[in-house]
Amino acid sequence: MLIHEDRLFPAEPATRTIARALYAQVQGLPIVSPHGHTQAAWFVLNEPFPNPAKLFVQPDHYIYRMLLSQGVSLEDLEIGRPELKDPRRVWHIFASHYYLFRGTPTRMWLDFAFEKLFGLEARLSAQTADLYFDTISEKLRTPEFLPRALYERFNLEVLATTDSPLDSLADHKAIRQSGWKARILPNFRPDPVVDPDFRGFAQNILLLGEQTAEDTATWAGYLNGLRKARARFRELGCTATDHGHPTAQTADLPAAEAAGLFHRVLTGSADLAGQELFRAQMLTEMAQMSLEDGLVMQIHPGSVRNHNPKIYELYGRDVGADIPRATNYVDALHPLLNRFGNETSLTIILFTLDESTYSRELAPLAGHYPCLRLGPPWWFHDSPEGMMRFREQATETAGFYNTVGFNDDTRAFLSIPARHDVARRIDCAFLARLVAEHRLGEDEAFEVAHELTYGLVKQAYRL
Amino acid sequence: MLIHEDRLFPAEPATRTIARALYAQVQGLPIVSPHGHTQAAWFVLNEPFPNPAKLFVQPDHYIYRMLLSQGVSLEDLEIGRPELKDPRRVWHIFASHYYLFRGTPTRMWLDFAFEKLFGLEARLSAQTADLYFDTISEKLRTPEFLPRALYERFNLEVLATTDSPLDSLADHKAIRQSGWKARILPNFRPDPVVDPDFRGFAQNILLLGEQTAEDTATWAGYLNGLRKARARFRELGCTATDHGHPTAQTADLPAAEAAGLFHRVLTGSADLAGQELFRAQMLTEMAQMSLEDGLVMQIHPGSVRNHNPKIYELYGRDVGADIPRATNYVDALHPLLNRFGNETSLTIILFTLDESTYSRELAPLAGHYPCLRLGPPWWFHDSPEGMMRFREQATETAGFYNTVGFNDDTRAFLSIPARHDVARRIDCAFLARLVAEHRLGEDEAFEVAHELTYGLVKQAYRL
Amino acid sequence: MLIHEDRLFPAEPATRTIARALYAQVQGLPIVSPHGHTQAAWFVLNEPFPNPAKLFVQPDHYIYRMLLSQGVSLEDLEIGRPELKDPRRVWHIFASHYYLFRGTPTRMWLDFAFEKLFGLEARLSAQTADLYFDTISEKLRTPEFLPRALYERFNLEVLATTDSPLDSLADHKAIRQSGWKARILPNFRPDPVVDPDFRGFAQNILLLGEQTAEDTATWAGYLNGLRKARARFRELGCTATDHGHPTAQTADLPAAEAAGLFHRVLTGSADLAGQELFRAQMLTEMAQMSLEDGLVMQIHPGSVRNHNPKIYELYGRDVGADIPRATNYVDALHPLLNRFGNETSLTIILFTLDESTYSRELAPLAGHYPCLRLGPPWWFHDSPEGMMRFREQATETAGFYNTVGFNDDTRAFLSIPARHDVARRIDCAFLARLVAEHRLGEDEAFEVAHELTYGLVKQAYRL
Repeated sequence: MLIHEDRLFPAEPATRTIARALYAQVQGLPIVSPHGHTQAAWFVLNEPFPNPAKLFVQPDHYIYRMLLSQGVSLEDLEIGRPELKDPRRVWHIFASHYYLFRGTPTRMWLDFAFEKLFGLEARLSAQTADLYFDTISEKLRTPEFLPRALYERFNLEVLATTDSPLDSLADHKAIRQSGWKARILPNFRPDPVVDPDFRGFAQNILLLGEQTAEDTATWAGYLNGLRKARARFRELGCTATDHGHPTAQTADLPAAEAAGLFHRVLTGSADLAGQELFRAQMLTEMAQMSLEDGLVMQIHPGSVRNHNPKIYELYGRDVGADIPRATNYVDALHPLLNRFGNETSLTIILFTLDESTYSRELAPLAGHYPCLRLGPPWWFHDSPEGMMRFREQATETAGFYNTVGFNDDTRAFLSIPARHDVARRIDCAFLARLVAEHRLGEDEAFEVAHELTYGLVKQAYRL
Repeated sequence: MLIHEDRLFPAEPATRTIARALYAQVQGLPIVSPHGHTQAAWFVLNEPFPNPAKLFVQPDHYIYRMLLSQGVSLEDLEIGRPELKDPRRVWHIFASHYYLFRGTPTRMWLDFAFEKLFGLEARLSAQTADLYFDTISEKLRTPEFLPRALYERFNLEVLATTDSPLDSLADHKAIRQSGWKARILPNFRPDPVVDPDFRGFAQNILLLGEQTAEDTATWAGYLNGLRKARARFRELGCTATDHGHPTAQTADLPAAEAAGLFHRVLTGSADLAGQELFRAQMLTEMAQMSLEDGLVMQIHPGSVRNHNPKIYELYGRDVGADIPRATNYVDALHPLLNRFGNETSLTIILFTLDESTYSRELAPLAGHYPCLRLGPPWWFHDSPEGMMRFREQATETAGFYNTVGFNDDTRAFLSIPARHDVARRIDCAFLARLVAEHRLGEDEAFEVAHELTYGLVKQAYRL
Repeated sequence: MLIHEDRLFPAEPATRTIARALYAQVQGLPIVSPHGHTQAAWFVLNEPFPNPAKLFVQPDHYIYRMLLSQGVSLEDLEIGRPELKDPRRVWHIFASHYYLFRGTPTRMWLDFAFEKLFGLEARLSAQTADLYFDTISEKLRTPEFLPRALYERFNLEVLATTDSPLDSLADHKAIRQSGWKARILPNFRPDPVVDPDFRGFAQNILLLGEQTAEDTATWAGYLNGLRKARARFRELGCTATDHGHPTAQTADLPAAEAAGLFHRVLTGSADLAGQELFRAQMLTEMAQMSLEDGLVMQIHPGSVRNHNPKIYELYGRDVGADIPRATNYVDALHPLLNRFGNETSLTIILFTLDESTYSRELAPLAGHYPCLRLGPPWWFHDSPEGMMRFREQATETAGFYNTVGFNDDTRAFLSIPARHDVARRIDCAFLARLVAEHRLGEDEAFEVAHELTYGLVKQAYRL
């Protein structure tokens, strides 16, 4: 057996018993996935995933960055190729390095999928690589493994994708028109048109103008174009925006200054500080629009993107060469909060890659401002130890009710049930300790476990 | 029952047994509270606390900031009003949101007071709000709930308030003159006359001159005024000063430069950097005076005060809109330590809101310099998890003996026994783990538990 | 008994059972000590250590900084004296303050040596000081306590010292020529000739020129001199360099700029920023040379050296007045990694004194770049809690296989077995929890325990 029914529960027997009881109540709740990076197209086409390497290895930067760190080349793993030349060879490389993932969440997510979905029970290794490849390949060709069947099997209630304002959302429309009863929604991620450092920024803004019939060469037209793009997303069920800036910096410039800055970034005459100031201003503009249209804001700051220039040149964005940096929130968010911090109808969900901010800045901010909520542990911290640190460090100041349940935030569709399962188990383990240490009533722990799994995410994301 | 006799002890039975035994030895020791924000006037007047809302909700920013964060308005809670219009309504709002405090220390402190002081055993909620209001109101009118009676019931040995150098200390004098055998002492907190950013700074310095018969328009007269004010505090039993600066920055300017800077801040011609440099210089001047007169220095740095300007405008200082910021000690304290770091007759107690400094800066500094000691976890970190992190992260480098026991630092008088109880339990839980893991002899753990509860605070604060 | 056979294992019985089993397998493995500060001369002379104070107190800044922090003067401890005037008196001072070390790793290391090496079983205190002094003194005069005998008794397989490029390495040669079968190797630590802030920097570079027959007044000659010095170290078995800079800053200047900067630092005309830039450039130059000659690089950044100027004046470098500072890696290492980050034949081992970087920067960097590995917890963090935090915070992103086993990094020869024993126990305790929580198979945990103890260090350090 790859996965144990008591995995992630504390070893101490009395605490484990409580954790088990709590988990039994939330284990079967539907999965609400309000933020992630799956592709709506999968559910339009509903075609079989081609092979194990394409399914598990190629989209998952958690996997191939670890192999890279131990000297495996991304070329050998065929990263970035639309079709794999030798998927079995890629799978063998992965399998023979599977021991590298000992102690990581990737290992736990994969074992969950291997056993629960594919019925595999011998550990993945060079020896079992072919068995895995053949078993998975065969199952992928069956109807039960088509994307829509998996969506239903995973008990998904909501699945959100992340999309450019320039995206036609044709796939989302097609899903709606197909009559299939699934709730797959876009998230509005405006990086291509609000980040001057994004490839093709100026052209993107032109395109936004064309799509929205606004003169986006002007500040007012640009803002209107964004408003219209948001409205288009909302029509397809979108309830949230997402902002992935290098820092959490916000600004609140007078309109004339903002317009002048927009002109400079659009014409490429702004320096790095001007570009950063523009991103900062745009967070505040987005908050203004959220007040108007009700979209929830998610801020994911603090990643130095594309840290490895060779990898970026060869493979592009989002290939695992993103490294966190220390992130300040208390000063950075001040301009935005000065303007909107006391709005009770605005929701801004803060994420971090800098765990030192949980107790120092994020919990105190979320424990004060009505508009702020804390997102779950993100990316490198979406792990058993990371989740436990979040609860240990944020709860005493922010409480449970200023948090928003779990996000899987994944590109790896098959990892979704495993990731939510880990989150549920860790939350139950944390609650079990509070009960065992007589810090919370067991009746209360049941209520909180339900909220952390299901209630808070629906409320915070307005689903 | 709201509180369990084994609360906060580890669930593992052998460790819990050790923790219980340690706690049994320190549970009944007197409370020494060397730093806090209660009002001496309460003990002069010795009048009943008016009602539950006024007693529990209004003075406690831990409570109302959490309610605010979930959309309750401070206006509805009647924060800042000298007399409440509808205390029962305020109490109902609080009671119906009491679930927000699950997992927070506030919940634990309140439950302790509700059960131990008022005999309440059903959990506070909308349903029990009236029962609570009536029960507490009734008891507050009895002699056993007058401030002096509570002081004695709490087994307080020392209770320190925090006072401006301009305060007449009339209340402290009145307590002494009343013949009541209690040890209620002022702390000397000079913000109003050393922080150029404090409202009324220049007028405060004029007033200091009047009160001390010094020409405080001159640098020398100003310093002498401070010396005399300190002497006045010492006459009333004061043993400590307290310094709540935005950063831990210190400076050691030549006297002529310091005098020039003083002139600039006094006339309002210093910029923000000059104001910060002045505060920095004043920490070193205060250390010089402490060497002379023996007052222990407490430094509480790293809070961005009044982060929410709307709340500040409506409700003033200290209303929960203070958010921590990353704090540097190693460079910031260098000027002061270069001058006084090796003085064995000086005691400087360092606090932090930035837990990342425990192991990185504070424990190494306190584990080297004879003048430095580490204060207990402060404010957002005065919590079970926060206290445990402090012991886990500071002890291995600084040991136990460079720490100074517990501070409750509270405005909420009725929370004092609960807060000290939490600290004693967590210290015993930490020691119990060391014993259970054979890292400390049980006989030693008993000695250390006594020191952490009673010995070190009296020694460090020279009580 | 001073030390218990189950020390440092979790109290929970099932977890402890697993930890014991894991430890039983690694307890007896040879000690590989690839980085430390013992003296090769001890093994050349093979003379008895003179007395307990000279052996335990004088070389160990962990001990005397703690005594200093509690008001004991270094003068009374006779720190820095070549011969002690009154070693028994020094020992008595230490013994009477031994309680200060409760809860610290120093206490655990010392108790291990006292009991395992000297057979002492009563705790050290003022009462037992003479017993200790006499027992230890007597044993030190026996053949079993000569340095070479201890090396063998400690089951050392490799012991590395840390040496200046200007060192003749005569002691290392003498050991080799003696025919004694021990593997004692130098580490190449170039601070004296790469850090412009090092005392005698310019003269050191002249001396390097003389020793290597290069014109080290030129940039090319200087680099060649370093190459030759490295080659001389390699001939004596050296496999690693070591770099102890104030920050992790690297630079990658064009050769002409680097040459100009070298000229400025050599002639003393560079300012502080220029000195920092030179150190930064030299890390990249050292990486280039490591690519050529295969020496593993160790980077130990982030200590503010000689923070206490009075102590530095009286006692010199490395006397415990070094305090960590917040350390950035993600930007600081960028220039070096841009050039060499993807080299699979280069190994750079990163250390830190800033634990907040484990999960935020170090694990993500080591989990991506093939040339990077994570060194074990260092200095203030070389402790049970510190080691456990490292595993908890680094493993989920970097895995086990991007770490390199343990370094004792000690000047205190007799603490080596104790330090490695603590590391083995904590690693087994961590693994035992993973097994007990069904996050790792027990068979895998045995493999990993062996790797963490023995396999990874030999591989990473190319031993």
